[in-house]
Amino acid sequence: MTVRFGLLGAGRIGKVHARAVTGDAGARLVAVADAMPAAAEAIAAQYGCAVRSIESIEAADDIDAVVICTPTDTHADLIERFVTAGKAVFCEKPIDLSLDRVKACLQVVRARKGRLMVGFNRRFDPHFRAVRAEIDKGSIGAVEMVVITSRDPGAPPVDYIRRSGGIFRDMTIHDFDMARFLLGEEVSEVVATAAVLVDPAIGAAGDFDSVQVLLKTASGKQATISNSRRATYGYDQRIEVHGAKGLVSAENQRPVSIEVANGAGYTRPPLHDFFMTRYTEAYAAEIAAFIAALSAGDAAAPSGEDGLAALALAEAALKSVAEGRVVKMSEIL
Amino acid sequence: MTVRFGLLGAGRIGKVHARAVTGDAGARLVAVADAMPAAAEAIAAQYGCAVRSIESIEAADDIDAVVICTPTDTHADLIERFVTAGKAVFCEKPIDLSLDRVKACLQVVRARKGRLMVGFNRRFDPHFRAVRAEIDKGSIGAVEMVVITSRDPGAPPVDYIRRSGGIFRDMTIHDFDMARFLLGEEVSEVVATAAVLVDPAIGAAGDFDSVQVLLKTASGKQATISNSRRATYGYDQRIEVHGAKGLVSAENQRPVSIEVANGAGYTRPPLHDFFMTRYTEAYAAEIAAFIAALSAGDAAAPSGEDGLAALALAEAALKSVAEGRVVKMSEIL
Amino acid sequence: MTVRFGLLGAGRIGKVHARAVTGDAGARLVAVADAMPAAAEAIAAQYGCAVRSIESIEAADDIDAVVICTPTDTHADLIERFVTAGKAVFCEKPIDLSLDRVKACLQVVRARKGRLMVGFNRRFDPHFRAVRAEIDKGSIGAVEMVVITSRDPGAPPVDYIRRSGGIFRDMTIHDFDMARFLLGEEVSEVVATAAVLVDPAIGAAGDFDSVQVLLKTASGKQATISNSRRATYGYDQRIEVHGAKGLVSAENQRPVSIEVANGAGYTRPPLHDFFMTRYTEAYAAEIAAFIAALSAGDAAAPSGEDGLAALALAEAALKSVAEGRVVKMSEIL
Amino acid sequence: MTVRFGLLGAGRIGKVHARAVTGDAGARLVAVADAMPAAAEAIAAQYGCAVRSIESIEAADDIDAVVICTPTDTHADLIERFVTAGKAVFCEKPIDLSLDRVKACLQVVRARKGRLMVGFNRRFDPHFRAVRAEIDKGSIGAVEMVVITSRDPGAPPVDYIRRSGGIFRDMTIHDFDMARFLLGEEVSEVVATAAVLVDPAIGAAGDFDSVQVLLKTASGKQATISNSRRATYGYDQRIEVHGAKGLVSAENQRPVSIEVANGAGYTRPPLHDFFMTRYTEAYAAEIAAFIAALSAGDAAAPSGEDGLAALALAEAALKSVAEGRVVKMSEIL
Repeated sequence: MTVRFGLLGAGRIGKVHARAVTGDAGARLVAVADAMPAAAEAIAAQYGCAVRSIESIEAADDIDAVVICTPTDTHADLIERFVTAGKAVFCEKPIDLSLDRVKACLQVVRARKGRLMVGFNRRFDPHFRAVRAEIDKGSIGAVEMVVITSRDPGAPPVDYIRRSGGIFRDMTIHDFDMARFLLGEEVSEVVATAAVLVDPAIGAAGDFDSVQVLLKTASGKQATISNSRRATYGYDQRIEVHGAKGLVSAENQRPVSIEVANGAGYTRPPLHDFFMTRYTEAYAAEIAAFIAALSAGDAAAPSGEDGLAALALAEAALKSVAEGRVVKMSEIL
Repeated sequence: MTVRFGLLGAGRIGKVHARAVTGDAGARLVAVADAMPAAAEAIAAQYGCAVRSIESIEAADDIDAVVICTPTDTHADLIERFVTAGKAVFCEKPIDLSLDRVKACLQVVRARKGRLMVGFNRRFDPHFRAVRAEIDKGSIGAVEMVVITSRDPGAPPVDYIRRSGGIFRDMTIHDFDMARFLLGEEVSEVVATAAVLVDPAIGAAGDFDSVQVLLKTASGKQATISNSRRATYGYDQRIEVHGAKGLVSAENQRPVSIEVANGAGYTRPPLHDFFMTRYTEAYAAEIAAFIAALSAGDAAAPSGEDGLAALALAEAALKSVAEGRVVKMSEIL
Repeated sequence: MTVRFGLLGAGRIGKVHARAVTGDAGARLVAVADAMPAAAEAIAAQYGCAVRSIESIEAADDIDAVVICTPTDTHADLIERFVTAGKAVFCEKPIDLSLDRVKACLQVVRARKGRLMVGFNRRFDPHFRAVRAEIDKGSIGAVEMVVITSRDPGAPPVDYIRRSGGIFRDMTIHDFDMARFLLGEEVSEVVATAAVLVDPAIGAAGDFDSVQVLLKTASGKQATISNSRRATYGYDQRIEVHGAKGLVSAENQRPVSIEVANGAGYTRPPLHDFFMTRYTEAYAAEIAAFIAALSAGDAAAPSGEDGLAALALAEAALKSVAEGRVVKMSEIL
Repeated sequence: MTVRFGLLGAGRIGKVHARAVTGDAGARLVAVADAMPAAAEAIAAQYGCAVRSIESIEAADDIDAVVICTPTDTHADLIERFVTAGKAVFCEKPIDLSLDRVKACLQVVRARKGRLMVGFNRRFDPHFRAVRAEIDKGSIGAVEMVVITSRDPGAPPVDYIRRSGGIFRDMTIHDFDMARFLLGEEVSEVVATAAVLVDPAIGAAGDFDSVQVLLKTASGKQATISNSRRATYGYDQRIEVHGAKGLVSAENQRPVSIEVANGAGYTRPPLHDFFMTRYTEAYAAEIAAFIAALSAGDAAAPSGEDGLAALALAEAALKSVAEGRVVKMSEIL
């Protein structure tokens, strides 16, 4: 069975997903929609698909699934419309910045028995997947502590920061999902510290640029997340998972792995400087997983509930910073 | 000038310091005292020094300085006696497990204008020193985040745990000192999570075996400490310091750095399995620094106040766990 | 300008090049030919191109360039036919196993002012390219010594060995090209040792499986090549280049870079186990370079003369082993 | 039993051995001799031993063993004198620069049933020892190829070069010994290339500064040695041993293992810049091994015959360079 796709949104991330869909033997890109006709036409020309309106894709008989890459504030509405129209939905994270809106959206998905996968692409990074596979194989015994380092090469424009929902909802949310993916048990308590160290303008916009979060589950498993909007040496994305029998970790990735040695020492090049080159394989693999799940009739993960859970952790972290205390997840959800 | 030493305590750590003193061209080991005569005699035989009582060393004209390696509950008393006797004092950490007792002791030291150095040996590890040197050189710009990983190969006997003052005062205290050493600014807030994951007997003794701590300074600098009483792969001692211009980190150390590659992959040997082999160079270097400071008439660091500050952070972490909230250091000191 | 391609040979490597051509915005795959119709048809179906005979591609007006992926013993004939037909030619290495046949072929290419690029794909590996770029930037000063390690995960079937021209012409030839690429000066002397350590059947077929080669240029620059048909830990492909001012090296590559640590030590997964996954990026980049050279009207490198030079080094190595002496390249070419 | 030592030669390496002897519980340094009285007196003062003449040590009843650290041209004579005097002898390498002189000396040793250990200290480096231990444990199966990289931070003075016997006898000799130590089978063939790339003055003195050597055993095992008198990044000392079942390698060593990351990349400090800091542990361990062998009544290795074999390989390499051919060891010994 070939899964027939409509693409909603032809921007930067839309192009990435267009390539992934067309490169998958089990899928076909049928149509693309975008508020900017030129963007949609460029993708249509490159991959030989049609340009259509969102309404037309919604009503189409020749489309089984959509990939939603439109602006964040349209995600929840589009998910509801397309699951109602009977399409399987892959939606870029986040579903929405409001916890209540996400809950309402997921109720619609459940009511319609819709199929929804959320774009937490990092679960599909081959290195992080391999970390999880080692846990599943029992290589490290019962998981005890997860340590996530996630630092961006540089801060986004303050204008973006303002619309982003803040660092916990925008950046840490990936790490919250990763912590859940690796802990294997729901988080029950959250505590965070936050500061503005990189750019005062970020503080002026009401956000933070340097945060650290501790998570704890009911059985005592723990996770640490360390975030910064600044890393001069590139896109710092590391994971380590400590278990009763050992440790598994994923190293940073660089585009070129050479080393120059001289009187100043041994120097390797900086890391990737952009999330789209760092996670190239992950973007392709998440779409492949979505297609494979649809083809097999399986549930696609990460689900809408995973999206909700990560957002709830962001809410808890914000509340922890505001109130200077440990926040129980039972206060949030 | 040769500094003439008396050694108080001839146990495991006493032997290490005896070797350091005798190996230093600027010092001479004159006498050793221990409640167990055989222990003192063994050191006396090996290094050609005298066995004396503590009282005799206290009264001796031919001794300028002492190294206190006796049980923890004698430290504060001995510090007071020996600074009163006009000797320079190097004391193993901690000064005492009680914050009040430490404060009282330091008042005596100040009143007597005594010279006191506390044995936070890790400041003298060549790798950690080099991390600090890079900070001082400006290699990473202003410090923003310190990440300390400190995991023991295995838990000590529960009997030891009971007398230890708990993991924060016994184990994390080294990391509190290291965080202060690297942050370059006093910590103002502490929050911690703690769990029993390694051994229920540790929990039964009222202690934890797996803890994580966040520290924050007034200007927003942050530090994370991750501790466990278990690390199957050896003594895990890593530091990374993120600054405005870059990152400096110290890797783990292993006794032998070979690698075997075959169908199972590439395998390097485990790390050091014992703090005394991991920190061999640090133990020698701290005594050398004490001797150098005495010879030069300089203040010896880390000072008694450093010992107090680290203990206060342990108190704050304990309070944070007990009350589930961020604790301000102004509540403790 | 779009370069229109014919593909000669639809086997394993043909498929790789088909993907590279179709994925390049500057090119179009027009037709494919193969003695096995099913193989050609599979590629035609996947990429929407025609199946044609070799003769038809030779005569076609709508084809500018061909990629030759047919068996080795057809390469020289096809190069001559297609340069005569006015097509640009990319030919998989080697041009031929006979030095004389290569020389004759290149005379035809020159006479016809043909455009010929030879598939030494490793020059296009991003890591090795970066090594060369550091040399060109002057990072290591004048090149003095090149060290090439090239070990295959396992020996090919003896049947392949028999047709391969032997290890120097089949396997080391890549390293000879790499040495020339990095030395920046022609080799003047060759000496080699060779042994059968992996499989006596290889010896029975008149070949070796474990060889080491020293190369020297007129000015004294040196290169070492170490080859084996066996590497249990994966596809071992390392380069180091020592210069007057420093060293630049390229590390091995593995598909997944995680590490598991436990009582047995720290283990990273094996390397790539197959040249086609190890050199995925290189295969795409060499075709892109060919297309770019054609579009720009530049000479495409590595050239036919590069192919000849590498084969001549293989001849010299064979002669060195046979005669137990240093062979001067002036004896060969 | 305590082994009582005389030290012949109180220069740089003499001091290293004095420290090793005095630090060993099984030994005592009784006397030191040196043509320069001040040098001998300095050691005597530091370690509390006597200054004596060589003749007096030769005749002494209270001395069981000597360590010979005098100039190279006195080694063979002193070995003969002291084995004749019934002392066990540890002699710094080389025994002599002349193969004939070494053979004659070893005949005396054998005739006197003398005990002689030669100072190939690298066998005692903990990392290289661990490589050998993995071979002995069978971790890599039968040894097939040994790759030795040995590059000095800088060239010695030309005056030293002139007296050194040339790079093969002075520098490569360590690597010849290491190759023998790791191959586990005698070398039967040698071929080498040599050049002057670092300093023309070395060439003017009749020596080379950049050499590469291939060794082969009767069964086809191979070794490569790569030497240079220049390495801007420090003292480059690497070993890899490939076997039928895997690879074992020893990494380079640096005094401090930190890493600084910024926009220029990830930089670790240079390696050790001096053989005495690189091989600190090896120097202590070789003397400990000598003492242990004497105490146990075992043969001390590496033996005089090991010294002869390494020198013979140097002769063969020189002959290979001179004659441009593979030299069989049967031509030399």
